[in-house]
Amino acid sequence: MPAPVLSRRDLDFLLYEWLDVTALTARKRFAEHSRETFDAVLDLSAEMATKHFATHNKLADANEPHMLPDGTVETIPEVKAALEVFARAGLIAGQFDESLGGMQLPTVLARASMAWFQAANASTSSYPFLTIGNANLIVAHGNAEQVDTYVRPMLEGRWFGTMCLSEPQAGSSLADITTRAVPQDDGSFRLTGTKMWISGGDHELTENIVHLVLAKIPGGPAGVKGISLFIVPKVLPDVAGLGERNDVTLVGLNHKMGNRGTTNTLLNFGDGTHTPGGQAGAVGYLVGEPHKGLSYMFHMMNEARIGVGFLAISLGYAGYLQSVEYARTRSQGRAAGDKDPTSPPVPLIRHTDIRRMLLAQKAYVEGALALGLYCSKLVDEQVTADDEDAAARTTLLLDVLTPIAKSWPSQWCLEANSLAIQVHGGYGYTRDYDVEQFYRDNRLNPIHEGTHGIQGLDLLGRKVIMNGGAGLALLAETVGATIDRAVAAGGDAADHAGELRAALERIVATTARLWGTGNPSVALANSSIYLESMGHIVIAWIWLEQLLAVGDQDGAFYDGKRQAARYFYRFELPRTGSQLDLLDSLDRTTLDMDPDWF
Amino acid sequence: MPAPVLSRRDLDFLLYEWLDVTALTARKRFAEHSRETFDAVLDLSAEMATKHFATHNKLADANEPHMLPDGTVETIPEVKAALEVFARAGLIAGQFDESLGGMQLPTVLARASMAWFQAANASTSSYPFLTIGNANLIVAHGNAEQVDTYVRPMLEGRWFGTMCLSEPQAGSSLADITTRAVPQDDGSFRLTGTKMWISGGDHELTENIVHLVLAKIPGGPAGVKGISLFIVPKVLPDVAGLGERNDVTLVGLNHKMGNRGTTNTLLNFGDGTHTPGGQAGAVGYLVGEPHKGLSYMFHMMNEARIGVGFLAISLGYAGYLQSVEYARTRSQGRAAGDKDPTSPPVPLIRHTDIRRMLLAQKAYVEGALALGLYCSKLVDEQVTADDEDAAARTTLLLDVLTPIAKSWPSQWCLEANSLAIQVHGGYGYTRDYDVEQFYRDNRLNPIHEGTHGIQGLDLLGRKVIMNGGAGLALLAETVGATIDRAVAAGGDAADHAGELRAALERIVATTARLWGTGNPSVALANSSIYLESMGHIVIAWIWLEQLLAVGDQDGAFYDGKRQAARYFYRFELPRTGSQLDLLDSLDRTTLDMDPDWF
Repeated sequence: MPAPVLSRRDLDFLLYEWLDVTALTARKRFAEHSRETFDAVLDLSAEMATKHFATHNKLADANEPHMLPDGTVETIPEVKAALEVFARAGLIAGQFDESLGGMQLPTVLARASMAWFQAANASTSSYPFLTIGNANLIVAHGNAEQVDTYVRPMLEGRWFGTMCLSEPQAGSSLADITTRAVPQDDGSFRLTGTKMWISGGDHELTENIVHLVLAKIPGGPAGVKGISLFIVPKVLPDVAGLGERNDVTLVGLNHKMGNRGTTNTLLNFGDGTHTPGGQAGAVGYLVGEPHKGLSYMFHMMNEARIGVGFLAISLGYAGYLQSVEYARTRSQGRAAGDKDPTSPPVPLIRHTDIRRMLLAQKAYVEGALALGLYCSKLVDEQVTADDEDAAARTTLLLDVLTPIAKSWPSQWCLEANSLAIQVHGGYGYTRDYDVEQFYRDNRLNPIHEGTHGIQGLDLLGRKVIMNGGAGLALLAETVGATIDRAVAAGGDAADHAGELRAALERIVATTARLWGTGNPSVALANSSIYLESMGHIVIAWIWLEQLLAVGDQDGAFYDGKRQAARYFYRFELPRTGSQLDLLDSLDRTTLDMDPDWF
Repeated sequence: MPAPVLSRRDLDFLLYEWLDVTALTARKRFAEHSRETFDAVLDLSAEMATKHFATHNKLADANEPHMLPDGTVETIPEVKAALEVFARAGLIAGQFDESLGGMQLPTVLARASMAWFQAANASTSSYPFLTIGNANLIVAHGNAEQVDTYVRPMLEGRWFGTMCLSEPQAGSSLADITTRAVPQDDGSFRLTGTKMWISGGDHELTENIVHLVLAKIPGGPAGVKGISLFIVPKVLPDVAGLGERNDVTLVGLNHKMGNRGTTNTLLNFGDGTHTPGGQAGAVGYLVGEPHKGLSYMFHMMNEARIGVGFLAISLGYAGYLQSVEYARTRSQGRAAGDKDPTSPPVPLIRHTDIRRMLLAQKAYVEGALALGLYCSKLVDEQVTADDEDAAARTTLLLDVLTPIAKSWPSQWCLEANSLAIQVHGGYGYTRDYDVEQFYRDNRLNPIHEGTHGIQGLDLLGRKVIMNGGAGLALLAETVGATIDRAVAAGGDAADHAGELRAALERIVATTARLWGTGNPSVALANSSIYLESMGHIVIAWIWLEQLLAVGDQDGAFYDGKRQAARYFYRFELPRTGSQLDLLDSLDRTTLDMDPDWF
C-alpha cells in the first residue's frame, strides 16, 4: 500500500474547520452545492488520482514523449487513458458555469480537487491544468461564438488548450516578442512566428489543440502595449466539426530534467508547412480588443501562478508523506544516548534530526497548501462579492498575495523534496523511490509562469505600492486582524502573535525605507530577498490562522498542527531578521558588482 | 568554445598568492618539486579534463552503465579511454611515494589536479578518486606484501579500488553490519555478506577490482568495536598474475538521479557463485589488526569526506562559470528604469538580480574551494611536520574542519547549481545545457560519506568537545589570528573582522551553553543547525583570509574577490544570527515532536 499523495484529513481541516468553505453555498453561484457535493468531489479526486494518475507517474518520467518521423508525438498510452477518465468525470469543467456543462464548483474546491492529481502525477495533470486556464480566459475575454466553438470541446476533454507567450529570444521579456498577426478581410488574422516552452504544444492526446497566442499586429504600439491575443487552433473547426489543418508546426520537443511526461515544445506558426485556405500564415482569431492581449493573459497568468504554487505544494506534500512513511518503517541506528550495540535498531523517526526534517517539510507543505487554498477562496469571494467595493478589496488582496502564492511554495516545497530525499538516505537518490522525481519535477516551478526574480519585482515594484500603497496596507490590516484574535486567544497563539506583529511592522517600515530612496534601482536591488522575507511573514500569518482554528482541540492531528506552527515560529520566521537588516541597510553589493569582476 | 570547468586564475591565487604552496618544497618530502612542476600538473590536468573528461560527461549521464545477461557491466567506451589517459599521465599515483612510482605531490596539488576532473566529469572521476583512497589506506595500514600486490597495480591504473561499508540494512549505522569473516588455517579469511551502495563495485574498466570490506570476525566484540577490515579482490592474484575468480558477485546496479556514469552496486560476498580453491566464501586478507577496521576506514573516510567536498565544489564551480558565460551572452529585457520598449535588450548580467545569483555562486564556490585547499594543505603539513606537537595540532584542526569541508560545499555548492539553473531560465531546466546535470550530480553529496545529519553529530557531538574542547579552542585561536591580522590591515577587512569576531565568540558561547545542559539529547537536538552555523562562520573566516591575500592589489580579479567577500559578510554570515538564537534557546521543538503527530 503506497503512502497517499495528499492528506484528506488536512484538506478537511483547512477547507471546513478553517476556511469554512461550506459557507460559500449561501452565495447564489454555489447554492446547488453542499458539504456532501464537496466531499464527493474530493473523494472522487483522491480515488481517481491514486488509481489512474499515480500509477503511471514513474513510467511517464522514464518514457518521455518523443517525436516520430511523421512529426507527431508519441506518448505512453496510460496518459491518454487517465485523461479520458478525468474528463469523463467532468473535472475539466468543474469550476465552470452550469450553462457550459460545468459543476459551478467554487475555485477553492476545484483547486483542492486538482491538487490530488498534481500530487499523483505532475506531468499528466498539466494537460487539464493548462486547458482549464485557457478555457477560463476565453470565457472571460472571448465572444460567445469563441466560447461555443472552443471552450465547450475543451471542457468535454475532446480538445486541450495551451498558452503561447515565450519565444526563443523572449522569455521573461514579453515586450520583445516578434510573432506577427496580419489582419485579413474576413476579420481573421494570419500569424507568423516561433513560440518556445509551449507545454502541451503538440501531442495526439486529443483531436485538436487550442493555442492562445500573444502576437503583435503590425503598426501597433511598441513593447507590451502592442501585444494582442489570438486563438489559433491546431485544426480549424468548420461546420462539420474539424476541417483543415492550420499552419502550426511542431519543430521540436524540449528535453527536461523533470516534468518529463508533459510535452514541452518549440512551435512554428505560419512557416508554410500547411497553407490553410491555400494561403500563407496560421489562421488566428482575435480575443477581445487589439493590443490588450497582455492584460487578458495576465488574467490567466495570475490563476496559473497560483496553480504553479499548487503544483509545487502537491509535489512537496507527496514527498513529505512518503518520507514520513519511510521514517516510520525503516530502522537505522540507536536512540541518542543508547550505547548498547546489541539493542535493536530503532525506526528513523526516533532520531531527532529526522524529525526536524519531517517537521520542516510539514511546516512548509501544510503552510503552503493553506495559503494556496486561502487565495483560491479569495477568487470565489471576488466573483460572488455583494458589492464592488468588497470585490475590489478582495482583488487587491489577491493581487498582493499572488507572487507569494507562486514563489514561496516553489522555493520551500522544493526544499521539502530535498529533505524528503535526505530522510530516505541513499535510497532517496535512486529511481526506485519517488522522491528524486518529485525533486526534479518541482525544480521547474521557480522558473515558469514568471521566474522567482520576476515575482520579486512584481511584489516590491508593483503590488505593495499600487494604489498609493493600498495593497500593502490591506495585507497588513488582514494580518493585523489575525494577530488581534491571537492575542485575545492567549497561550502559544498570543506569543506567536507578538513575534508576527514585530515582523510585520518591520517589513512595512522596510518597504517605506526602500521606496523612500526615490531610486527604483536601489529600492529593487534586492527584491528577491524582499519576496522571500514577505513570504515567510505571510506563511507565519497562515500558521497563526491555522493555530486559531485548532484552538484547544485534542488529538494527534491538532497536536501536530500546534508543533508545526511552533516549528515555523522558532526555526523559520526568525530568518527574516537578517533579510530585513540587509534591506534596511540599502545594500549596494549586488548593484555595484561590475560584470567584469566575475 | 565551452566555458572552462574551473578557474586557473583562482587556483593560482589560492595556491600561490594565498596558501603559498611553493613553500612546501622546502620540506624534504616535496624537495624535488617547484612552482614549475606544480604548474605543469595543473596545466596537464586542465587540458586532459577538458579534452577527455568533459567531452563525455553528458553522454555518460544519458547512457548509464547497465548489466548484461552474463552479469558483466557495459559502460560507454569513452569512460575507459579517458581513464587510461588519466592513468598513463601518472595522476593516480600523483601523491604517492616515489618508491611506489608516484610523483610525491603535495596533497593540496593532487586535490587541485583532481578538481579539474571532478568538475569536468563527476562520474568518470569517481573511479580514480576511489582507487586513490583505497590505495592510501593500504599504504597506511596494510603490510608490505599487500602494498606490493594491491597498491602497485592500482597506481598504474590496471586495477581499481572500492570501499565496501554499507549493507542494505545498515547505511549510516555501521555497528549493525552483518558481513562475516571466518579465519582460515592459512591466515586468510572467508567472507559472506551483502554490501550496498558500492561505487565502482563492478565494471569491465580494469582487469581487477580491489574491494576494501568491513566485516565482523565471529566471536569479536559487538557493535563498531568488532569490525575488521579486509582486502577482497575480485580476481585472486597468483604468482602468474591473475588467477581464480573470487566469490564477489554483482547482484544489481542502483539507478540514480545523478552521478549516473559511476556504477553503484549491490554486491554479494561468498554467495556461492564462485568457489575459489573449491571452497565456500569470498577470500579476504586482514588489513592490520582484527577489530580495528573502523578506525582504519576512518582514515580513508576523512580523506574521502574532504574529497566529497571537492566533488561538490567542482560541480558548483563548473555551474558558476557556465552561468556567468550565459549571463554575458544571453540578452533579455531592459536595464532597470529604461522604459523605452524600442531600446535593444541587454545581457542578463546587467540585471541586478542576475548579478545577485552569480555573486552568491561566486561566494559559495570560491569560498568552498579555498576551504578545501586549506584543509588539503593541512594534510601536507601534518605529514611533514617538524615535531609531534605540530603534527598533533594540525591533525586536530583538520579533524574539526573535516565535517565542515564535507557538508558546507555539499549544501551550498548544490545551492549554487540551483542558482546556475535559475540564471539560465527555462534553458537551464533542459538537458541541452549542463547545469541540470550538475544539480542532479551534486544532490548526492549531502548523502554519501556520512549524511549531513551525521556530520552535524560528528562536529558538535565529537569534534568540538574532544580533548576537553581543544578542537574548538584551536579553531577559535586560528580564526582569531586571522581576525587580528585583519584588524591591523584596516578597511573592509577590519570591518569584516569585527563581524567575524562577534560570530565566533557567539558560537563558542553557544557550544558551552549546549553542553552545559549535561544532556546530550538536548545538546545535540539541533546539531544540523549548529553544523550549518559553524560552516558559515568558517567560510566567513576563509573569505577574510582571501581578502587579506588580495590586499590593495588592483584589477578585476581582485575587485571580484573583494566584492564576493563583501557579499558573504552582508548576505550570508548574518544568517547565523537566528540559528545561534535558536541553539541558545535550547529549543525542544524537534525533540518533543511525537512521531504520531505527523
